[in-house]
Amino acid sequence: MIEENILSAEKVMLNSYRKIRNRSVEICKPLATEDYVVQPVVDVSPPKWHLGHTTWFFETFILIPNFEGYKVFNDQYNFVFNSYYETIGARVIRTDRGNLSRPSVSDIYKYREYVDANMAAFLSQNTISDDLSTLFELGLNHEQQHQELLLTDIKFILGHNPLLPPYDEHCDWEKTGIQKQGMVSFPEGIYEIGFEGEDFCFDNELNRHKVYLNDFEISAGLVSNAEYLEFISDGGYTDFRHWHAEGWDWVKESNAAAPLYWHLVDGKWMQYTLQGLQEINPEEAVSHINFYEASAFASWKGMRLPTEAEWEVASDHLEWGKRWEWTGSAYLPYPGFKKVAGAVGEYNGKFMVNQMVLRGASIATPEGHSRNTYRNFFHARLQWQFTGIRLAR
Amino acid sequence: MIEENILSAEKVMLNSYRKIRNRSVEICKPLATEDYVVQPVVDVSPPKWHLGHTTWFFETFILIPNFEGYKVFNDQYNFVFNSYYETIGARVIRTDRGNLSRPSVSDIYKYREYVDANMAAFLSQNTISDDLSTLFELGLNHEQQHQELLLTDIKFILGHNPLLPPYDEHCDWEKTGIQKQGMVSFPEGIYEIGFEGEDFCFDNELNRHKVYLNDFEISAGLVSNAEYLEFISDGGYTDFRHWHAEGWDWVKESNAAAPLYWHLVDGKWMQYTLQGLQEINPEEAVSHINFYEASAFASWKGMRLPTEAEWEVASDHLEWGKRWEWTGSAYLPYPGFKKVAGAVGEYNGKFMVNQMVLRGASIATPEGHSRNTYRNFFHARLQWQFTGIRLAR
Amino acid sequence: MIEENILSAEKVMLNSYRKIRNRSVEICKPLATEDYVVQPVVDVSPPKWHLGHTTWFFETFILIPNFEGYKVFNDQYNFVFNSYYETIGARVIRTDRGNLSRPSVSDIYKYREYVDANMAAFLSQNTISDDLSTLFELGLNHEQQHQELLLTDIKFILGHNPLLPPYDEHCDWEKTGIQKQGMVSFPEGIYEIGFEGEDFCFDNELNRHKVYLNDFEISAGLVSNAEYLEFISDGGYTDFRHWHAEGWDWVKESNAAAPLYWHLVDGKWMQYTLQGLQEINPEEAVSHINFYEASAFASWKGMRLPTEAEWEVASDHLEWGKRWEWTGSAYLPYPGFKKVAGAVGEYNGKFMVNQMVLRGASIATPEGHSRNTYRNFFHARLQWQFTGIRLAR
Amino acid sequence: MIEENILSAEKVMLNSYRKIRNRSVEICKPLATEDYVVQPVVDVSPPKWHLGHTTWFFETFILIPNFEGYKVFNDQYNFVFNSYYETIGARVIRTDRGNLSRPSVSDIYKYREYVDANMAAFLSQNTISDDLSTLFELGLNHEQQHQELLLTDIKFILGHNPLLPPYDEHCDWEKTGIQKQGMVSFPEGIYEIGFEGEDFCFDNELNRHKVYLNDFEISAGLVSNAEYLEFISDGGYTDFRHWHAEGWDWVKESNAAAPLYWHLVDGKWMQYTLQGLQEINPEEAVSHINFYEASAFASWKGMRLPTEAEWEVASDHLEWGKRWEWTGSAYLPYPGFKKVAGAVGEYNGKFMVNQMVLRGASIATPEGHSRNTYRNFFHARLQWQFTGIRLAR
Repeated sequence: MIEENILSAEKVMLNSYRKIRNRSVEICKPLATEDYVVQPVVDVSPPKWHLGHTTWFFETFILIPNFEGYKVFNDQYNFVFNSYYETIGARVIRTDRGNLSRPSVSDIYKYREYVDANMAAFLSQNTISDDLSTLFELGLNHEQQHQELLLTDIKFILGHNPLLPPYDEHCDWEKTGIQKQGMVSFPEGIYEIGFEGEDFCFDNELNRHKVYLNDFEISAGLVSNAEYLEFISDGGYTDFRHWHAEGWDWVKESNAAAPLYWHLVDGKWMQYTLQGLQEINPEEAVSHINFYEASAFASWKGMRLPTEAEWEVASDHLEWGKRWEWTGSAYLPYPGFKKVAGAVGEYNGKFMVNQMVLRGASIATPEGHSRNTYRNFFHARLQWQFTGIRLAR
Repeated sequence: MIEENILSAEKVMLNSYRKIRNRSVEICKPLATEDYVVQPVVDVSPPKWHLGHTTWFFETFILIPNFEGYKVFNDQYNFVFNSYYETIGARVIRTDRGNLSRPSVSDIYKYREYVDANMAAFLSQNTISDDLSTLFELGLNHEQQHQELLLTDIKFILGHNPLLPPYDEHCDWEKTGIQKQGMVSFPEGIYEIGFEGEDFCFDNELNRHKVYLNDFEISAGLVSNAEYLEFISDGGYTDFRHWHAEGWDWVKESNAAAPLYWHLVDGKWMQYTLQGLQEINPEEAVSHINFYEASAFASWKGMRLPTEAEWEVASDHLEWGKRWEWTGSAYLPYPGFKKVAGAVGEYNGKFMVNQMVLRGASIATPEGHSRNTYRNFFHARLQWQFTGIRLAR
Repeated sequence: MIEENILSAEKVMLNSYRKIRNRSVEICKPLATEDYVVQPVVDVSPPKWHLGHTTWFFETFILIPNFEGYKVFNDQYNFVFNSYYETIGARVIRTDRGNLSRPSVSDIYKYREYVDANMAAFLSQNTISDDLSTLFELGLNHEQQHQELLLTDIKFILGHNPLLPPYDEHCDWEKTGIQKQGMVSFPEGIYEIGFEGEDFCFDNELNRHKVYLNDFEISAGLVSNAEYLEFISDGGYTDFRHWHAEGWDWVKESNAAAPLYWHLVDGKWMQYTLQGLQEINPEEAVSHINFYEASAFASWKGMRLPTEAEWEVASDHLEWGKRWEWTGSAYLPYPGFKKVAGAVGEYNGKFMVNQMVLRGASIATPEGHSRNTYRNFFHARLQWQFTGIRLAR
Repeated sequence: MIEENILSAEKVMLNSYRKIRNRSVEICKPLATEDYVVQPVVDVSPPKWHLGHTTWFFETFILIPNFEGYKVFNDQYNFVFNSYYETIGARVIRTDRGNLSRPSVSDIYKYREYVDANMAAFLSQNTISDDLSTLFELGLNHEQQHQELLLTDIKFILGHNPLLPPYDEHCDWEKTGIQKQGMVSFPEGIYEIGFEGEDFCFDNELNRHKVYLNDFEISAGLVSNAEYLEFISDGGYTDFRHWHAEGWDWVKESNAAAPLYWHLVDGKWMQYTLQGLQEINPEEAVSHINFYEASAFASWKGMRLPTEAEWEVASDHLEWGKRWEWTGSAYLPYPGFKKVAGAVGEYNGKFMVNQMVLRGASIATPEGHSRNTYRNFFHARLQWQFTGIRLAR
């Protein structure tokens, strides 16, 4: 009968759940057990922590409050795997995550299997309300965000080991190809930005609203390694005039002279990639620069970074998706932004100060996760994401 | 003859110069010599440093390059009194300013007199070009900005001394009076903001440009001490839900439980003012709160801070000028913003990251210095300015 | 023939080598792979680092310079496993050891096997000179010192994990039994201390020399948990009069209120041991106290800690070997102390400032490693060794 | 009548008091008011703090408990001027002393006059008990210790000002003259050290006790600038083999390459002295080196620093008194050392850990203050005292 072929909403949900959960495990396949454990800097979390934390999210927000009879896997995991939800009690402070040898990697995989089995049971035996469905989708998107962090954190862990071990010698994910050339122009006027529609979006993409933009031009492609090398050889890192005051402080304190992962080996610039140490391809888009570097480069070019509104308006005409793009916009609430009540309300709003918006997506972003209204955000000094530069004027 | 009554442009300039330069000296009249020297925290500068630095500005940017035959007062003062101009060479780092017992206060007053005499001679003997006139006006506005800092820094120095000495027992400058009640409404649409006209403005107020605003309401007056006390007694400082994540970190690290200068004495809230320790007047506007506190208060009220565009559009309907008002806007360049070439180009642009805009003026702002397009900016954690809260929704 | 039963010196050396090297591996048997990796505080090293570093010692000081044709296992390991020998080139700074996921634990075990096989070949094929024999013995004693650190560092890693996993539920090594009671008296006069004889000793035990001691009494056994609990309940941690100034600073900064690993659980003092969390046995010797605590306890008792000379003179009359005992002596060179030339000369002498001497041995000390002239030394604030208190007056 | 010429004990005391108290004021004569206020590093105190603190000592320990009807000058001064006496209540932490603009310098001089007048009245109207007399002598010796600190702290404040102002252009106090040459030998055997007699001594000089010394030689004079320049040009600061491990860390962190106050000006070593910047006289004794530097120099010479016992035994044969001399002895209690009960018991004993003993006296030591049993002590890294090097072997 034809009805047999129609999947229930819950079955669709379970399929998505399994696919996304599996992806996290696949990302970690090339790792040695030891790679799951370390935390070289505070912004990077150990891979095993990501695996545990995303599982804890489903256990804490879906299973415990909604699945009757659910038995918590381990009482103490809330303390270990809570990231920043003040509502949910005490948590291991961020700088301590790399000191935890236990739970072991295999315990965490057992935890994942246990929660996954319970999620499957829960989705098979229950009709999911709209509210819960929203929370469930948030959980999946949350897991995808951590998949991106998993990859960037793994790169950091291996790329800061003196042996520079590759993640996978055959993985050429970082490649961007030659970028589109030229600028695209837009006339001044009222535009609309922000998410609209029935699908999932984060609260920070709402409300859709009008903005007034001046005439602007925006580059169709991203800045290449060749262009960035020119900036370096023209003294870009030694001329304070291109830098924000705190960017200049960062340059001096960190002795920055090139993007993260670049190494000058026998007079030649090499870069650590997921495939190990490699020659820099001048045609590819530059990566692993922070906001200060992106701004300084733009200033050196006599241009500027686009605002997030300009980016969104122009997005259909741009080549994007390989590098997160620093914008000139601070991460602030849209008109009419509302925090949800309860713990998930802590998701976005409380970070809306002293961070910059990045638009687009990167090669580490799970397929289908981003969209042209998506607002990523990081501190201006951070380089460890796959970040690039688009220019505007 | 009638011509005798017409002052030359240079004579007008000299009059302004003298009036403004005198004001700095007047602000310091109540100080003991020792009060000129100390720097309790890095954000506060010793008063003698302000007096020297503003003088150095005129010497370095006006006299040295333009007044033929000018003899520098002391070669080493550039090192001591340069604040942050990378163009002009080495400088005492900010954290070391309070370690300098020399030049002595009387040497600095001699320096002021020497530069003032030379400025008078220069303005009497030369016709001032338009470019130089702009620079001159910048110098006066710069001095006025430091007059405000002088007063807030002096308050900090005396207000953090265990003896809590008053600045001046008779000075009631801090008073705000009872604030206007109620909200003012504005319809959605295109508005213009930014400076326009012939008079002086800072580069960050340019260009005047269109913005699209949604419907909004903004409070006519500022939040009172009574309202803020209600926030405190309702547990405002212990409920993380109202705070930004980094604001909450600040609360915990600093054990913040009230505005700066508030002291709980025998169960009663008192505040240190320029007149010494006094009872809090519930009807006056609250002061000395940082951006985190302003935001948390607004969240507790179920409202938000206005954006700087909303503030500027509404400004004619608002009671303002007693407290700098934190806005919900990050300090970023306006469309078409251009840095001036040379050292004075370092004035504003390089600070346009990780700071919040404040609008209005405070009781410490020199008369005529601010205007409704004026963009003040500070780091979100700073409390030592006379800052207040206006609400919007 | 009888000659067959006589082992060559080299064969004896190889037997010792194998026995001692095996012991390091045995200590690590109960560990999960993840436990080998972390470094919760700078004074603790990851177990895998200890295993690599002790191997590096034999490779660097014995094999490379003496075993013709020896091929280095991995060129980069010198950078990773050099601890502090400035002579031997660059090294991973101490605070970074816990960031290294590679070399993996299994790579390090391969490294050990490789070096062990080469050491066996070397000792079978060569006659060992006296100089080399001394170096070889130093290597074995060095390995034994790291065996002790392995155990104390493992205890720290597991004992600071929120899950408090036991090292081995059946291992009762920490037990001391009831300590001897009473004091032993010694008359004033000239005594001799320092090592004498043919066997191995560290350079810091030389030269044997005369000291003049006043009359003194020294306790036959160590301070018990019961006595220490009395100190705690009498306010020992809140009365500054018993503490050195910097000890008191340590108490206030660290909120110290009990020995390391003690936890007040439902009003009852428990301690984390190698067997997991256990009740405190009042009759056993107290452990994991630092020099400040040992001194404060002694002051509270109206006594003092013995000097290292007193301890050595009295040692035959004392019950010792379960806890390292803080003395009142700073770690300084004996009369006639000479540094050996070359890298091994960096072994002891360069640490002879700002550390205190500990005498005796602990339950973590390998059998036969210590002796009554042995001079252990640590910074006054450190608690993570199995340390105890002996009193004198 | 002859009786008129016999001064009472109290009159003698008052004369000493006046003479010593005046000396503190004389030392400060060349200062500008601003010089009294600053604290460039935590180890240096502002001169006005020294003037207040020594006065507070007499007020707190002599007048308040013993002079009936004495009225405290200012209740809050205990908080400001208590240095480290935990017994006497709260105190301004050491790092905050330089933030205090009030009490003003003139208030502190008034405080001195007030306390001095009361001390005069007290000594005229009362018979002083033996206990009180001891305390009084302690107060005078305490003031003399702060006179030495006053001078070294003033040198630090002026010598770290970018203008390098002289303390007094005519003051040649720092000069040592050409030092005695050659070594003096002593045979092994039992010697006695420690104070004996009726006069004042600090508690740390007691008890006089026997020590056993090996044969030793000690240099009659101090190491000269010429010898130290040779150490520098032979690469002394770049060869780790001469340094303690933590000394070597200090060299690298501080980029040390010469004694404190030495400046390489146009290729020539100059030194800041109380007379301002001057050429280095090669024949004079080197000054302002820390324990690490003294030890490294001795190691480079193939010698060592003397122990404090050796120094004391040899002292009659040595030229001493111009520079405090680092010994190889840690600062520890003598046999039979007893802390006095009460606040003055905090004077010495609580510092007996992690400091090194210095013997002799310096050009900043008040006349008659030191003696050959005197035990000065500082942290190994400190350079700001007038410290020198004597060698032994």
